[in-house]
Amino acid sequence: MSYNLLKGKRGIIFGALDEHSIAWKTAERVHEEGGKFVLTNAPIALRMGQINELAEKTNAEIIPADATKMEDLENLVEKATEILGGKLDFVLHSIGMSVNVRKGKHYTEQNYDWTHKGWDVSAVSFHKTMNVLYNKDAMNEWGSIVALTYMAAQRVFPDYNDMADNKAYLESIARSFGYFFGRDKKVRVNTISQSPTPTTAGKGVKGFGGFISYADKMSPLGNATAIDCANYTITLFSDLTKRVTLQNLYNDGGFSNVGVSDGVIEAFEEE
Amino acid sequence: MSYNLLKGKRGIIFGALDEHSIAWKTAERVHEEGGKFVLTNAPIALRMGQINELAEKTNAEIIPADATKMEDLENLVEKATEILGGKLDFVLHSIGMSVNVRKGKHYTEQNYDWTHKGWDVSAVSFHKTMNVLYNKDAMNEWGSIVALTYMAAQRVFPDYNDMADNKAYLESIARSFGYFFGRDKKVRVNTISQSPTPTTAGKGVKGFGGFISYADKMSPLGNATAIDCANYTITLFSDLTKRVTLQNLYNDGGFSNVGVSDGVIEAFEEE
Amino acid sequence: MSYNLLKGKRGIIFGALDEHSIAWKTAERVHEEGGKFVLTNAPIALRMGQINELAEKTNAEIIPADATKMEDLENLVEKATEILGGKLDFVLHSIGMSVNVRKGKHYTEQNYDWTHKGWDVSAVSFHKTMNVLYNKDAMNEWGSIVALTYMAAQRVFPDYNDMADNKAYLESIARSFGYFFGRDKKVRVNTISQSPTPTTAGKGVKGFGGFISYADKMSPLGNATAIDCANYTITLFSDLTKRVTLQNLYNDGGFSNVGVSDGVIEAFEEE
Amino acid sequence: MSYNLLKGKRGIIFGALDEHSIAWKTAERVHEEGGKFVLTNAPIALRMGQINELAEKTNAEIIPADATKMEDLENLVEKATEILGGKLDFVLHSIGMSVNVRKGKHYTEQNYDWTHKGWDVSAVSFHKTMNVLYNKDAMNEWGSIVALTYMAAQRVFPDYNDMADNKAYLESIARSFGYFFGRDKKVRVNTISQSPTPTTAGKGVKGFGGFISYADKMSPLGNATAIDCANYTITLFSDLTKRVTLQNLYNDGGFSNVGVSDGVIEAFEEE
Repeated sequence: MSYNLLKGKRGIIFGALDEHSIAWKTAERVHEEGGKFVLTNAPIALRMGQINELAEKTNAEIIPADATKMEDLENLVEKATEILGGKLDFVLHSIGMSVNVRKGKHYTEQNYDWTHKGWDVSAVSFHKTMNVLYNKDAMNEWGSIVALTYMAAQRVFPDYNDMADNKAYLESIARSFGYFFGRDKKVRVNTISQSPTPTTAGKGVKGFGGFISYADKMSPLGNATAIDCANYTITLFSDLTKRVTLQNLYNDGGFSNVGVSDGVIEAFEEE
Repeated sequence: MSYNLLKGKRGIIFGALDEHSIAWKTAERVHEEGGKFVLTNAPIALRMGQINELAEKTNAEIIPADATKMEDLENLVEKATEILGGKLDFVLHSIGMSVNVRKGKHYTEQNYDWTHKGWDVSAVSFHKTMNVLYNKDAMNEWGSIVALTYMAAQRVFPDYNDMADNKAYLESIARSFGYFFGRDKKVRVNTISQSPTPTTAGKGVKGFGGFISYADKMSPLGNATAIDCANYTITLFSDLTKRVTLQNLYNDGGFSNVGVSDGVIEAFEEE
Repeated sequence: MSYNLLKGKRGIIFGALDEHSIAWKTAERVHEEGGKFVLTNAPIALRMGQINELAEKTNAEIIPADATKMEDLENLVEKATEILGGKLDFVLHSIGMSVNVRKGKHYTEQNYDWTHKGWDVSAVSFHKTMNVLYNKDAMNEWGSIVALTYMAAQRVFPDYNDMADNKAYLESIARSFGYFFGRDKKVRVNTISQSPTPTTAGKGVKGFGGFISYADKMSPLGNATAIDCANYTITLFSDLTKRVTLQNLYNDGGFSNVGVSDGVIEAFEEE
Repeated sequence: MSYNLLKGKRGIIFGALDEHSIAWKTAERVHEEGGKFVLTNAPIALRMGQINELAEKTNAEIIPADATKMEDLENLVEKATEILGGKLDFVLHSIGMSVNVRKGKHYTEQNYDWTHKGWDVSAVSFHKTMNVLYNKDAMNEWGSIVALTYMAAQRVFPDYNDMADNKAYLESIARSFGYFFGRDKKVRVNTISQSPTPTTAGKGVKGFGGFISYADKMSPLGNATAIDCANYTITLFSDLTKRVTLQNLYNDGGFSNVGVSDGVIEAFEEE
């Protein structure tokens, strides 16, 4: 499938770890749609993942960057515009990590150093990225910035831990920075709130299996997949959504607006 | 329990059918808190219910009124202010009925005459009530109007049928009319969005049992009861919430902001 | 601009009155993107507008239909699938009208016959349309239905009158019917909540000029135009948004998530 | 005004600086309603403010605590339950501070050490407070925890800077921790989203004057005052709102649900 929707557009894609990553699928789809980009991830993630394979497939260069470090981001943006030959049209932020989740620390007993680390990586990194893009004037007019988020920012998913609060902060950054980016540079900023997706990261969350099956049963169109998310992101990078900004957009098969489904009621009637 | 929160206040309470009704419990609590009121319901509901018992207990007069008829509402408001000896401080709208639900007509195959009837009874009646109160200047400054609604206005509950759409319209009326009522008369207008409650009306909805058990399991504090709703309404009628207006307020044990609970995940992990 | 995003897709477009209409612009863009469709409008609107010009330009047939009448809608859907040679992939509902607005009747003094008429035309027509499409099994899997709405469904715009309540009902229908359409037919249903747009209909609303200038000053990217809306609709009709459903999507330059803008604060500081 | 709504109840009130503080007014009202409490604030704030006067007036002891330090909070909770003679029924969190705002650093150029400090003080302090209360089992069943927040968590107010993101994180904590506090201890947790209020802290925000006048003109009941907020908080501490939890409650004269007011349109029509 290709419509040349992103022909001539340049960008940066954060967070492609392996073929299960949403960012990985998005990179593939952006490539198919004619967009050029650099790939980036934290040095440690680059070592763990198979990103070279993706880079080859999509003719992309890889620039390592720790998204919590301004100097790394500055280097990234400078190199990216140099390599791609001009200002950027799109950026995908797909970064999230909670040390509390990884180490099995319950939400009610957080280790606050870990909380700080997760907030910095998962949320503040988005502010820093836009800070660099904005102050270096590195985006073209009508460019588009997208960050991935999750509905835990609005409603409780008990095992999502402090990632819920990080995502709420991230979505707030999208609005706050999006206001200035829109007003001053005509750049839109949105978040996509995706169905629970069995990525390598997602699978680490406790109770993920039960939740994914519940979400699927609640959603009239079923859970949105990584490919669905990649396709939706394409539309937000394209010239067809120029005045959509400051929005949090659900790509979830309808889950967010379902109170209960027949399937779920039945399960509880049987009890 | 009594705090004299409504001492000296006058009002009208719509929709008390029997002791399971939220309006019934509210009338009892308003009485305990020192408020005076008239009770009203449609003539047919008056015949079916046990409202005389409530009227006696709370020293209230009953004025029949079909809330879809302007002349009935005009008569009601005139009589009420006469009987109570002054302008009104509070009004509770607790009216809802779907012919499609009653007759088991599926949402996708509605009989539109029935749809019209349900909309008129459940939603437009609230506009008509406020129309009369506003144009007769029958409310005191800082008075409070509350209508009961349900979360189906925001999210799908498959068996709730066209009542979902009626509640969405009702909540919109609260905002639209509340704007003018606030600006011109300093009267607040809010809706309470209550947990599924086993009233005589509620029990008629298909799949209600399964849903009520699911909602209870989803809510960290469990489903809110009719008494909880009566108490919450008291606070909204009191002088302690003078600048709360145009709001839809959830009284639901937390349900509205829970994506999934441990209990529900477990049920789906076992599968 | 054309990406062949809708190549091979068939649909129905309601509500193109003249070249200022959003539906008109959408028809032009759908045509450019390779989609085929029939145009429809109420007989009286067809007489008033210049739809023949549009039909010629887009190789579309016109089928008159009063969207409040089931038999007209049944005829429309039957003829459309016949003419287009198969089931439908997309439908645009762009219908709205308030008699109270037209006749200058204030919200607090509505004529309820007019309220009923406006509700039937603006909101119930959407249910009837989906009723016919669903029960005739006239949509292809992964088809897409879009209705146009306005933020007055969430927040008060004093001169929007009962159209606010109608739009709230319309958006509720999108969720309620969208649930069944998704579950049973894999069809998505969404609404687009568009900036105030100077269409022929929009211009009739009192205070529209002041509001449109205010909205523009509040929105970091300025008001979305009719063309912006047409482009956004294209993405929702395309295969790139397959699991986006039950959503109300703001196409508004960011207005919906701005509390106040610098420009507006300045205006009030000067006072 | 006194209803004895909080007779016999014990609690902690954070953040009373001077007589303009919402926390100050709340302490006065809680005292009038029969509640007993300890007052707390950061050592530096205690030196700057006139809290002794309040303590005397309300028979309250003052326990200094830096709300970013677990040991201070542990000491506070231990002492409070000791002094008050039992577990707690209510807690008010009214703490917020942005170094970026204070030092005039624009949102797009944040100093991230300051961002971290503001986040820790304004948002994480709420988590730490609940952490101590929960793990020390210091709250009675059906107790109530309230934090003050602001609509900038949902919509952009350009000069509110990183406090917007902090408030979004705070509100998320209320939901996330509120889930566990409800499930395990039957304690409710809510936030009140208050009109812009001319407290000593509020007045420091750039453009505050223009905004407060705009907000007042937008709100059908005008801006809610500090006293209004104190009264609303009383209802949330009382036994009348037992199953209201995980909610963000607007106390704002209707502002949050108004798209535009007549007054504001007029201002823009004149232009």
